[in-house]
Amino acid sequence: MERQAVGQELGPLLIELVDLALTAKQAHWNVSGMWFRQLHAQLDELADDVRLWSDDVAERLTTVGVAADARVETVAARTPFASFPSGSVDSTKVAPLIVERLSKVVENNQTRIEKLGAVDLVSQDLVLGITGGLQKHEWMFAAEQPGQQP
Amino acid sequence: MERQAVGQELGPLLIELVDLALTAKQAHWNVSGMWFRQLHAQLDELADDVRLWSDDVAERLTTVGVAADARVETVAARTPFASFPSGSVDSTKVAPLIVERLSKVVENNQTRIEKLGAVDLVSQDLVLGITGGLQKHEWMFAAEQPGQQP
Amino acid sequence: MERQAVGQELGPLLIELVDLALTAKQAHWNVSGMWFRQLHAQLDELADDVRLWSDDVAERLTTVGVAADARVETVAARTPFASFPSGSVDSTKVAPLIVERLSKVVENNQTRIEKLGAVDLVSQDLVLGITGGLQKHEWMFAAEQPGQQP
Amino acid sequence: MERQAVGQELGPLLIELVDLALTAKQAHWNVSGMWFRQLHAQLDELADDVRLWSDDVAERLTTVGVAADARVETVAARTPFASFPSGSVDSTKVAPLIVERLSKVVENNQTRIEKLGAVDLVSQDLVLGITGGLQKHEWMFAAEQPGQQP
Amino acid sequence: MERQAVGQELGPLLIELVDLALTAKQAHWNVSGMWFRQLHAQLDELADDVRLWSDDVAERLTTVGVAADARVETVAARTPFASFPSGSVDSTKVAPLIVERLSKVVENNQTRIEKLGAVDLVSQDLVLGITGGLQKHEWMFAAEQPGQQP
Amino acid sequence: MERQAVGQELGPLLIELVDLALTAKQAHWNVSGMWFRQLHAQLDELADDVRLWSDDVAERLTTVGVAADARVETVAARTPFASFPSGSVDSTKVAPLIVERLSKVVENNQTRIEKLGAVDLVSQDLVLGITGGLQKHEWMFAAEQPGQQP
Amino acid sequence: MERQAVGQELGPLLIELVDLALTAKQAHWNVSGMWFRQLHAQLDELADDVRLWSDDVAERLTTVGVAADARVETVAARTPFASFPSGSVDSTKVAPLIVERLSKVVENNQTRIEKLGAVDLVSQDLVLGITGGLQKHEWMFAAEQPGQQP
Amino acid sequence: MERQAVGQELGPLLIELVDLALTAKQAHWNVSGMWFRQLHAQLDELADDVRLWSDDVAERLTTVGVAADARVETVAARTPFASFPSGSVDSTKVAPLIVERLSKVVENNQTRIEKLGAVDLVSQDLVLGITGGLQKHEWMFAAEQPGQQP
Amino acid sequence: MERQAVGQELGPLLIELVDLALTAKQAHWNVSGMWFRQLHAQLDELADDVRLWSDDVAERLTTVGVAADARVETVAARTPFASFPSGSVDSTKVAPLIVERLSKVVENNQTRIEKLGAVDLVSQDLVLGITGGLQKHEWMFAAEQPGQQP
Amino acid sequence: MERQAVGQELGPLLIELVDLALTAKQAHWNVSGMWFRQLHAQLDELADDVRLWSDDVAERLTTVGVAADARVETVAARTPFASFPSGSVDSTKVAPLIVERLSKVVENNQTRIEKLGAVDLVSQDLVLGITGGLQKHEWMFAAEQPGQQP
Amino acid sequence: MERQAVGQELGPLLIELVDLALTAKQAHWNVSGMWFRQLHAQLDELADDVRLWSDDVAERLTTVGVAADARVETVAARTPFASFPSGSVDSTKVAPLIVERLSKVVENNQTRIEKLGAVDLVSQDLVLGITGGLQKHEWMFAAEQPGQQP
Amino acid sequence: MERQAVGQELGPLLIELVDLALTAKQAHWNVSGMWFRQLHAQLDELADDVRLWSDDVAERLTTVGVAADARVETVAARTPFASFPSGSVDSTKVAPLIVERLSKVVENNQTRIEKLGAVDLVSQDLVLGITGGLQKHEWMFAAEQPGQQP
Repeated sequence: MERQAVGQELGPLLIELVDLALTAKQAHWNVSGMWFRQLHAQLDELADDVRLWSDDVAERLTTVGVAADARVETVAARTPFASFPSGSVDSTKVAPLIVERLSKVVENNQTRIEKLGAVDLVSQDLVLGITGGLQKHEWMFAAEQPGQQP
Repeated sequence: MERQAVGQELGPLLIELVDLALTAKQAHWNVSGMWFRQLHAQLDELADDVRLWSDDVAERLTTVGVAADARVETVAARTPFASFPSGSVDSTKVAPLIVERLSKVVENNQTRIEKLGAVDLVSQDLVLGITGGLQKHEWMFAAEQPGQQP
Repeated sequence: MERQAVGQELGPLLIELVDLALTAKQAHWNVSGMWFRQLHAQLDELADDVRLWSDDVAERLTTVGVAADARVETVAARTPFASFPSGSVDSTKVAPLIVERLSKVVENNQTRIEKLGAVDLVSQDLVLGITGGLQKHEWMFAAEQPGQQP
Repeated sequence: MERQAVGQELGPLLIELVDLALTAKQAHWNVSGMWFRQLHAQLDELADDVRLWSDDVAERLTTVGVAADARVETVAARTPFASFPSGSVDSTKVAPLIVERLSKVVENNQTRIEKLGAVDLVSQDLVLGITGGLQKHEWMFAAEQPGQQP
Repeated sequence: MERQAVGQELGPLLIELVDLALTAKQAHWNVSGMWFRQLHAQLDELADDVRLWSDDVAERLTTVGVAADARVETVAARTPFASFPSGSVDSTKVAPLIVERLSKVVENNQTRIEKLGAVDLVSQDLVLGITGGLQKHEWMFAAEQPGQQP
Repeated sequence: MERQAVGQELGPLLIELVDLALTAKQAHWNVSGMWFRQLHAQLDELADDVRLWSDDVAERLTTVGVAADARVETVAARTPFASFPSGSVDSTKVAPLIVERLSKVVENNQTRIEKLGAVDLVSQDLVLGITGGLQKHEWMFAAEQPGQQP
Repeated sequence: MERQAVGQELGPLLIELVDLALTAKQAHWNVSGMWFRQLHAQLDELADDVRLWSDDVAERLTTVGVAADARVETVAARTPFASFPSGSVDSTKVAPLIVERLSKVVENNQTRIEKLGAVDLVSQDLVLGITGGLQKHEWMFAAEQPGQQP
Repeated sequence: MERQAVGQELGPLLIELVDLALTAKQAHWNVSGMWFRQLHAQLDELADDVRLWSDDVAERLTTVGVAADARVETVAARTPFASFPSGSVDSTKVAPLIVERLSKVVENNQTRIEKLGAVDLVSQDLVLGITGGLQKHEWMFAAEQPGQQP
Repeated sequence: MERQAVGQELGPLLIELVDLALTAKQAHWNVSGMWFRQLHAQLDELADDVRLWSDDVAERLTTVGVAADARVETVAARTPFASFPSGSVDSTKVAPLIVERLSKVVENNQTRIEKLGAVDLVSQDLVLGITGGLQKHEWMFAAEQPGQQP
Repeated sequence: MERQAVGQELGPLLIELVDLALTAKQAHWNVSGMWFRQLHAQLDELADDVRLWSDDVAERLTTVGVAADARVETVAARTPFASFPSGSVDSTKVAPLIVERLSKVVENNQTRIEKLGAVDLVSQDLVLGITGGLQKHEWMFAAEQPGQQP
Repeated sequence: MERQAVGQELGPLLIELVDLALTAKQAHWNVSGMWFRQLHAQLDELADDVRLWSDDVAERLTTVGVAADARVETVAARTPFASFPSGSVDSTKVAPLIVERLSKVVENNQTRIEKLGAVDLVSQDLVLGITGGLQKHEWMFAAEQPGQQP
Repeated sequence: MERQAVGQELGPLLIELVDLALTAKQAHWNVSGMWFRQLHAQLDELADDVRLWSDDVAERLTTVGVAADARVETVAARTPFASFPSGSVDSTKVAPLIVERLSKVVENNQTRIEKLGAVDLVSQDLVLGITGGLQKHEWMFAAEQPGQQP
């Protein structure tokens, strides 16, 4: 049934985005080292975008009749991401940690885009926009690492 | 030692605020019923304020030399709040659930204000501002319940 | 004489508007119950409009050469309105109390408009604008009461 | 032929949107009752969105070479919607009347999205965006009715 | 009786304004030819103004206790205007078609202003403002036609 | 005939307003003395308002079919005002010179308002608004002179 | 009991602020003389600030569970201030009248700050901010009087 | 002497700019014909720029110690421009009339720039900026005439 | 391989958009004749939109791992467009020259949309948005030519 | 005596803030090296904040009746800071120089906060806010140095 | 050599501007008396402008390869200005003190403009703009003194 | 002849600026490495400024009667700059490549400024402003390279 099919794609995406926003803030507060300032700002822009996208995904879920669930215990239980390091993180080590998470969501979204194409093109269109945005952030964090150029 | 003393007050406050913001969003998405529209907006204003305050608290922690920790697994493990109900929540039942959480943080902050008064007046001043704001939200959610007037 | 004639219409209108603004604020602070949020906001918009209009009326008085008098003892002594209830007021009881005051000013303005038409069309035009605005607020508060539709 | 095919989907959508905007305004002016204020504002936001979308659809029609036709007699003759009730409408009765119309356009758009997918992906993309927006409004009006939660 | 008298003037004005706004949009979308760009913009400004005025008139009707009626079937049935041409309209032919409609409303408003002067000066003041605005648009469309100068 | 009647009132008003704007600027540039700063600013606000009003009057003239004429030679020939003093003007002497001109236009407008009331209420409404504004400026300049209070 | 203790400090402060705002407006309208313009503006800024502070104090009262009371009869009965002079007031006499009232509230606030320090630091913090603002206004009005410099 | 030398260049420029602004407004009000709309807007932008420049020139005059004189009788007596035609002016005839005036000021400014280069480089810099702006307007009006391209 | 496939579609589109922006500016500067003003503005809006789109396309290229190349020698060598005429271009001849280029890009995009549909829906979505925008500009330039209406 | 006591704390703070703002600007202009851009911006934000705080401190001094003194010779004579290096400063050496100054003011403020707590809570509250802001800047400059993390 | 020649003109100008900004703030805080308010505001505008100009001059120095030096000890040692009076300054005595400093910088700039004309026209253009601005401030402070008119 | 002389200076400057803007964008898209973020932003600001300047130069050319030519084939043929490297460019290598181009235009402008000084001071003033801006960008890119300080 379509409602369930949409929920099966957007529900996990919501979990990933909420964890990603918390992680971006965690890194925003704890980054240190010579590139502190650019990463401090870049992580805040990431958090802002991801929060807007999580709002769009949650409201799309409710719109199609599936209850959004991004309570802290749900996110903690279902997130696919490993723990972000605790404490201060050196500014040269932040980008890889963020790129790793962004590429994971992008990869998961490839399957979601395909599945949603069969059941709800409006939801697919939403995920296409979010994926493009995530990939752009991924490029900009990756560009700050040596040896990442095309 | 002062650094630790400040961390012992602001660290748990950060946990509570981050969970509160997630809860406000959860309710924002899942409220339904005749008062949907006013609560949908009111919860979003709460989430916005609480997110700003959590940012202030986390950056104060880092400023005094204590690593902020609001990763999802940390918040889930340490939050003092019971689970918010899953799924759709009727608009007449939202306010009590939010007031309960707000009054809990306000109560905890009474102790924090007292303790910080002995170790760091700058942090105390921050918590005073946040507490005033939380109490104002508490009043406005409480005012929407029958039998809550002074 | 024209100056006095204008003063006899605008002077009492100033008293009514200043009391109305104080009353709107009093209700804004003390309303409670299920419709708290919409009335809290609606009363603030009323107070804002009425304050602007009282400024216009007072400056028109001074412009035509009559000293405006809206000191608290003058307003208390000359206001035609009964006391607004003290303490918390249930959100279902606010609209009738406000409508009652608004319709009173509107009714008084009918006579003022007529009298000013004979002595000062500029002042009449000012009162026409204020009356239209008061009537619009009256409609919107009245609309929130059962059995008030045309 | 593609031009005609696009016109056959977007032409009727334009009719529905123009009628929907007129209906939203009609309800905006005539709603009354305890939830007056939230519906008065919500209907105006709906009218604003629908007017923007009708502009996009009409200009897409002209762009692909089909004359847009949203003259009053055309809309009256071709609209699929029954008459909105005349006179004052109680605030508890507005949401179902709006939801009924919104769900009708959304349903019609499912077919349009499918057909446009075969002839003009740019127009399809436009209709996907409008449909997502209409569904979000539908959710928010529906949420204000008892017994509508997922 | 005053309420009915006001309704008899403002009710038909609302019909005319709503049709005028739809017509301005119809022309905005379908104008073509060498003066396309200036008319495309000018018609949109007209539509914006007329929509604001129709809102003012409808809310004045409701304020004085008469239900506003601008549903599409009502407007189609009662509008005094002939059909605007379907399809593309050359940019040299648009101005006369718009001027014709504007001068009709202005002419009708002369009577309305006179009648409202006897029953409701607040409504008269509203119609005076709208008439001045319509006449200014009329001048600017008329100025674009040869042989229209004073 | 109405067109001529309107032109006979608004044409001279346009002359007076254009001269008044030039005079306000002349004083704005040449005022000196202890109250320089407040008058320099106050005269610029006057010039701004008067320029907007002259635009409204000129466009109303064109709208009713009378050519506006505010060419420099026309204004110089028809202005009712005596020459403003050349060169630097002491800040205690500016207010009386401006008040004198403002009260002249206000006085002339009393007749214009009366005459326009018989031929064109839209134009009368425009002149009422301008007169109220001129009187407010008159009050504020007059208030700066000793012995001018009511 | 704390609620009452807070009410005993903030309740009278609310009365003083509301009277102060009315007085600032009364002076704003009736000041005349050579320094009219600077005082007219300065008094309006004072009124704006004081209105915001009265709103903060009233909402703090409600937040802690004490009904705010700033109805006109309450303010008239409880205000500690003598009557402001009626009619026009010369611009050289305004500052002392305002400074007198401002220094009274500042003086009263010294006690309030002390008492609130024992019962509610959040309320104390609010009064500290208001007192700083009042003192800044007091300085600026006092600075305009001869012989007031430090 | 420098003061006089600057005055001899900027004084006449002020006269020309003030007349130019009045002329731009005269044309703005009285243009008619097929290009009405673009010229109506273009002339208003010209008037806005020229008014700003006349303010700069007049304040530079006062700054260097020469009284600015742009009273209507002075401008009428000293302007080098012939009368702009009275009454309605066809939109195809406006551009040449404006270009003629603009090129006159630009030509005069060539001499002024040269002379000011010897006595006051600050004033020269001001005139350079104004001349560049006038030439840009000249180009845009000239471009609307046939046979004017480079 | 997908990366190459995306690059084969977006690379040439970038070339076309960069040339189109340069051409729009070239025409913006050199257009002359009676419709100068509307084309001067319209071409600038086109340049603004096309520059934004070229930025989006170039950053999408980099995001998917293909180096964007829009150096002047690359664009000159690979652009599919013939030279835009040098020197002044009459305002009646500009629209066809622009429409010709816009329809070329739109036509090329039809193939690109199809190919991208098979390899990268995010890039396809980007090209759909750009194509809709280009078609709207195409309509508006085409509408200014005689004989172009549907 | 309180006035003197407040002056003894705020007077030296004013000196330190004014020197700090000059130093931030000096560094803003002369920083060079690989991190130029982030420090150039960060130092300007510091200068902006410190200028606002020096304004607040100086006006608080005047408000309590102590003349503020931040003339260049006073600041040069009383500043506790050693000279900032002249000429270009490498971007890796700027942060320690700034952190050193910031931590000095913060350290001095600890004593000031304590002393002001006994004589003037309003001034204490001002210094608390400034100290929190200075500490946040200190954290962000310190974070850019290796080995500074908590 | 050009770099040194530019430095010899702009270096001292930077010193003068930085001292002037500190002096304007010193006066802004300590002015008192009947004209307090206008001078308090006027001095702040002066400080704002002078700070922007000092930034431009310092960055021009760095741009041409000369290290800017506006450290407090440098400014104190090299400023050509006598000490501004300490403590409160009566509002009638401020303008002469400011005019004296402004005219000094303007006079020095005459030589600088001449010398820079021989070595760097870009720097000369910067100083021309600053000089014009300083002279405008000089006029406005001078205008507030008796006997200063042209 | 002057027109030609101006064209001989501004024509090549236009070519250089247009190539510079394309190069800045090329680098903006392809920079990578540890300083990616600051250069990505800095290059965009450069491109924005250079585009505005190229617009000013092109419109000055047209204003003085010389057709601007910045078509892609013209720019490619006449640009004095060598090819910017294709593909990804490391963030430590970007600044020298940009500085090299900026210093070239600045150097060319020295001659242009001299030549324009003899034929058209308005054009010279435009080039002075652009040169100052280019030098400021040059300083900021140069400052990011080791060993570039004065």
